[in-house]
Amino acid sequence: MAPTRTFTDLYVEVQQFYARQMRQLDDRKLEAYAETFTEDAEFGHTPGREPARTRAGIVADLFEFHKKFENDPVQRRHWFNMIDVEPQDDGSIRSTCYALVVTTRPNGTPTIAPSCVVNDILVRGADDELLTKYRRVDHDQLF
Amino acid sequence: MAPTRTFTDLYVEVQQFYARQMRQLDDRKLEAYAETFTEDAEFGHTPGREPARTRAGIVADLFEFHKKFENDPVQRRHWFNMIDVEPQDDGSIRSTCYALVVTTRPNGTPTIAPSCVVNDILVRGADDELLTKYRRVDHDQLF
Amino acid sequence: MAPTRTFTDLYVEVQQFYARQMRQLDDRKLEAYAETFTEDAEFGHTPGREPARTRAGIVADLFEFHKKFENDPVQRRHWFNMIDVEPQDDGSIRSTCYALVVTTRPNGTPTIAPSCVVNDILVRGADDELLTKYRRVDHDQLF
Repeated sequence: MAPTRTFTDLYVEVQQFYARQMRQLDDRKLEAYAETFTEDAEFGHTPGREPARTRAGIVADLFEFHKKFENDPVQRRHWFNMIDVEPQDDGSIRSTCYALVVTTRPNGTPTIAPSCVVNDILVRGADDELLTKYRRVDHDQLF
Repeated sequence: MAPTRTFTDLYVEVQQFYARQMRQLDDRKLEAYAETFTEDAEFGHTPGREPARTRAGIVADLFEFHKKFENDPVQRRHWFNMIDVEPQDDGSIRSTCYALVVTTRPNGTPTIAPSCVVNDILVRGADDELLTKYRRVDHDQLF
Repeated sequence: MAPTRTFTDLYVEVQQFYARQMRQLDDRKLEAYAETFTEDAEFGHTPGREPARTRAGIVADLFEFHKKFENDPVQRRHWFNMIDVEPQDDGSIRSTCYALVVTTRPNGTPTIAPSCVVNDILVRGADDELLTKYRRVDHDQLF
């Protein structure tokens, strides 16, 4: 319970949540990243690929997805910005933002692609923390 | 009236305002975008081009500006960040930020240009909402 | 003293602090930039280069570093985002964020590199303002 939480508090909480959540992914802590989703979450990160469902499914999907980097060492950084936070009547939070993936290879200049829109539904976990219940990533190059 | 609005509230409100305002532009909802300006606003987005004035003038100018994309389908994303918010004595708000335009063409990698500084004066509308009264976009490549 | 300062207030204060601090650097106001560090600060911005220490040392180091731009006019913009703010028990604030440097040359398209992680320790100055006591910038291309 957080009876005094304002919209301002929530907006900042979402920013901090994204910073930590995506750092986990960029550090390849895939299980820790999956823990930021609800147990029954749905996560569609790549168009044409079936969304992953449940935490276990998300972890399995991410290990599969990251295999392509096994022989191609990269440091990725997910940038989320221009966040639009909309509290919903049912207590969930709709959060929509722009995203860019910054990918650096050893001694190389980063490539910045793709440009995406992240469509999230966030909810509260057992400790009142934010969790992602639904994420669909739309890619700008597919239009 | 918002007697308890703090600087923190204002800063977050500006972030949310920019997220929604620029999404309207990126979605080519040009009239809706113009509605985020005051009726008497001045908006100079391109150096060497006369600033647009009044909402009607802004809409006309934007339709003219977007003609170049008619035969060149693009998805643009305006990223604003590094926001410096300065409440003024007259109740207006000076807001200065960095901007990048991310432009993606079908199946292509985005180009990220130009790099700009956005100089805004924001004021309150009839429903206490933020509106842009003045915007001048300075482009980094012109120096 | 700010007895009612919340985590939300702090998070926004850090965002505003970075916006102004890095604008000083990008505007080549090197002494003003150094004033945003504590007198005894340590600042390591480039791997393999000895960190600068004390404000005077930071100014000297920055003038040295910027010499390379004397015959190469550039406008740089430092973008900080994905900020993770962690108040510490000793009153200091650990702040970690992603950074990109956007560099524009006259009439040119910006180059965006390097991608970095900024590791800061922030403390309060005499007027309760934030100051950087420690900054280490990790570069993604070095791995």
